[in-house]
Amino acid sequence: MAKQKKQPRPKAETPKGFRDYFGTEVAERDAMLARIAAVYHRYGFDALESSAVETLESLGKYLPDVDRPNAGVFAWQEEDDKTWLALRYDLTAPLARIYAQHKDVLPTPYRRYSMGPVWRNEKPGPGRFRQFYQCDADTVGTPTVAADAEICAMLADTLEAVGIPRGDYIIRVNNRKVLNGVMQIAGILDPTDPERFSHERGIVLRAIDKLDRLGPDGVRALLGEGRKDESGDFTKGAGLSGSQAAVVMDFMAAKRDTGAATVACLHDLVTGSPMGVEGVQELEKIEELLEAQGYGPDRIEIDPSVVRGLGYYTGPVFEAELTFEIRDEKGRPRQFGSVAGGGRYDDLVKRFTGQSVPATGISIGVDRLLAALRAKGRLDGTATGPVLVTVMDRDRMTDYQTMAAELRNAGIRAEVYLGNPKNFGNQLKYADKRDCPLAIIQGSDEKERGVVIVKDLALGKRLAAEITSNEEWKAQPAQQEIPRAGLADTIADYIGETEKNLSGQGT
Amino acid sequence: MAKQKKQPRPKAETPKGFRDYFGTEVAERDAMLARIAAVYHRYGFDALESSAVETLESLGKYLPDVDRPNAGVFAWQEEDDKTWLALRYDLTAPLARIYAQHKDVLPTPYRRYSMGPVWRNEKPGPGRFRQFYQCDADTVGTPTVAADAEICAMLADTLEAVGIPRGDYIIRVNNRKVLNGVMQIAGILDPTDPERFSHERGIVLRAIDKLDRLGPDGVRALLGEGRKDESGDFTKGAGLSGSQAAVVMDFMAAKRDTGAATVACLHDLVTGSPMGVEGVQELEKIEELLEAQGYGPDRIEIDPSVVRGLGYYTGPVFEAELTFEIRDEKGRPRQFGSVAGGGRYDDLVKRFTGQSVPATGISIGVDRLLAALRAKGRLDGTATGPVLVTVMDRDRMTDYQTMAAELRNAGIRAEVYLGNPKNFGNQLKYADKRDCPLAIIQGSDEKERGVVIVKDLALGKRLAAEITSNEEWKAQPAQQEIPRAGLADTIADYIGETEKNLSGQGT
Repeated sequence: MAKQKKQPRPKAETPKGFRDYFGTEVAERDAMLARIAAVYHRYGFDALESSAVETLESLGKYLPDVDRPNAGVFAWQEEDDKTWLALRYDLTAPLARIYAQHKDVLPTPYRRYSMGPVWRNEKPGPGRFRQFYQCDADTVGTPTVAADAEICAMLADTLEAVGIPRGDYIIRVNNRKVLNGVMQIAGILDPTDPERFSHERGIVLRAIDKLDRLGPDGVRALLGEGRKDESGDFTKGAGLSGSQAAVVMDFMAAKRDTGAATVACLHDLVTGSPMGVEGVQELEKIEELLEAQGYGPDRIEIDPSVVRGLGYYTGPVFEAELTFEIRDEKGRPRQFGSVAGGGRYDDLVKRFTGQSVPATGISIGVDRLLAALRAKGRLDGTATGPVLVTVMDRDRMTDYQTMAAELRNAGIRAEVYLGNPKNFGNQLKYADKRDCPLAIIQGSDEKERGVVIVKDLALGKRLAAEITSNEEWKAQPAQQEIPRAGLADTIADYIGETEKNLSGQGT
Repeated sequence: MAKQKKQPRPKAETPKGFRDYFGTEVAERDAMLARIAAVYHRYGFDALESSAVETLESLGKYLPDVDRPNAGVFAWQEEDDKTWLALRYDLTAPLARIYAQHKDVLPTPYRRYSMGPVWRNEKPGPGRFRQFYQCDADTVGTPTVAADAEICAMLADTLEAVGIPRGDYIIRVNNRKVLNGVMQIAGILDPTDPERFSHERGIVLRAIDKLDRLGPDGVRALLGEGRKDESGDFTKGAGLSGSQAAVVMDFMAAKRDTGAATVACLHDLVTGSPMGVEGVQELEKIEELLEAQGYGPDRIEIDPSVVRGLGYYTGPVFEAELTFEIRDEKGRPRQFGSVAGGGRYDDLVKRFTGQSVPATGISIGVDRLLAALRAKGRLDGTATGPVLVTVMDRDRMTDYQTMAAELRNAGIRAEVYLGNPKNFGNQLKYADKRDCPLAIIQGSDEKERGVVIVKDLALGKRLAAEITSNEEWKAQPAQQEIPRAGLADTIADYIGETEKNLSGQGT
């Protein structure tokens, strides 16, 4: 072993755009993901965990930029064979690779769910990280819209299972084929030359996507010459004529009170475009299937304004929005917005095999959904720390460890204080930091008398905050002596009693 | 959008040394990790999930090789500020970084557990992957050996909680300080010049580690001039004199029937080395604490032959071995071996802060422990597929979806067949591949009569394998008609009945 040169101390920092998750944050996410997985599993979906690392070739999407093969992804080159590897940027690209690789042994259709981190080599910002969780469910290998309808129903069940009550969410469904039909009618899609007008279509799609924010007039401006915003900045429009723009505007206004009425209205709009008609028929079928299973427009609705950004969607597209209001950073009320989206993508597996493999799926933004549950007070954030066995006499460590072991064997979370026991105040400060419900204290006097002192730290805190008179304080002591024998049973009863009282109070 | 050049099809391959995990594999690991987390949590440990990506500077270990900063790790350089980033290679290095970064807000001692993938840029081999799971628990910020004892007790509880019965595992404890004391007595450790004799000590440590395989004679040869193996290859030894080697050999033979006896024997051996005596006293204290809590030498024992490879251990070291026999690839019986290891490392946080922060912990090899449970038949590998609602008439999709929805609402895993329904045989083949317990069938005739056919696929398989006479076949029909009304209740009862019968049979 050669002597190492003295290095400067490394900085203890999470890399830029990354973060760590502590205690309750991990537990809350795990609990939510477990609830989601239970719903997916009940629908017949199987778990799949792909490797975090893929060949850049198989991820594909970013390859065209040959000079910067790692734009958007974290990538590096293998030393031996110079293969480019990269961290997955979503869970769909790996699924396409896996289905192509294992299609002979996988069932068809293949229903799978995946949950895990994905990585994006993008500029980080407030609340915008370069590693985040996704939670996807996809059905690969079937063209039937029954699969799309199933995904939407499952998404509704999932949102309710994690704690978003009916009425607080809406799942919106549209169809790329209908959009394309409208584009065809408006004269900006030529089925014989799909690349033609793609610039104009891009502007139109982005304009539709902004309907919520800009209103009909703003969108209308973007369909035509362009739009000047409040700051005076001008955004060039798609340059559509009045009659062309009217087709698109009519389409966006096609939403009616019932799915059937919306479908009828859309049908009128796309007559003349076979692709559009096919799309409307698909929406009609989805609506029928969902309605029959009780998923009415209070939960899932046809909405022509849903666009979804990703270029690879080829049929139905879905978006789940939470409709309750929260306050934004400036205190203004706004709707919570989108927490999940997806759709049908029939060409992703084809990249590998040359054969079309129809697929459809949904991706839940895990962090956004967690934020929503937090905003609604729906997280079981009341995780409690362990019962703390304090150390009065450091030579009696075995006594204290034995108490903790007895408590744990009774299923109670417990630990012995393992810091320096000299200053008892520090032990109670530690208990406070850990959110310990109880502290157990046994000095030599209590030891001799065969008792321990139980200090109710949670009650102590509450009392300190609530109690106004000395009588009340005496009536509800936050500290009591109990026999050492049967410690675990007494504590278990006490905790059970406390929980009953707390839940009796309601929260 | 520019036209893209036609690219050759990408290969659908997992990168070399990586793998994907399907269905039951994911579920089994999740279930095992949840059981482990429950034990860790009960001991007062909090969850921590660090980012997968660290700065190479903070990972540290591999930095000395400045020409190849990514040797052993997957690393890449940021485009803007040229910082080297890397995937974490274990869960301990990130913990050291996090504790240094957040020590002002974290409780001290900080008990945390982490579970997740780690990445090693090493040559893959059979069963040796470049991404694998670890599951760690560590206590940071306390020097007391009570923390080491607690980790050992928790490890024993953990192994039993996941399904390794008492008697099938042993946790061995040693102490680096005792080892160093022995080295000092043997004259190959000079406390005033720690680097001196480090080459010899390395050979001695590796030799001790091989006691199981080489036996005392083989180890003795490696302590002296060297050893020729069966193939004739010569390994150069440490060059110890006869009396020097005798000290080490006595040390390895110091294990006695009880911890107290082993400790006494070790004490005699290291008298004269203050470091060694300190180490023996620590082992004695650990042994006392564990004994008092009922963790006797049938579960946790002092064993002087435990070395543990990692250079950073500074005190007690632990290793959990499974002692039951399995067959190796050539059919020979052998002990399953190590599934977890750890120890005290007092200098890892110091790298960042300059101040010593004592810490101790354990890491479970998740894949090895899963393999052990599989070998013992302890995995709940009986995951069942969904009840399959088959499609006899594709125009009646809503009927079938409604049946599946009813089943799911009753908590039964169920799905409608979504492949091409034309060939009914394909539907049953699919059910077989998915391991579906039941298939529901309703053609137009059954629809008219208000019934469905339930086909017990599991029973069908068993009957086909077991039944020898026609009478038996008729007595246990694998197919029956039930009313469509109350479908979910009937199926729930049926599944409950089947499970009862199965568990009644014993397995």
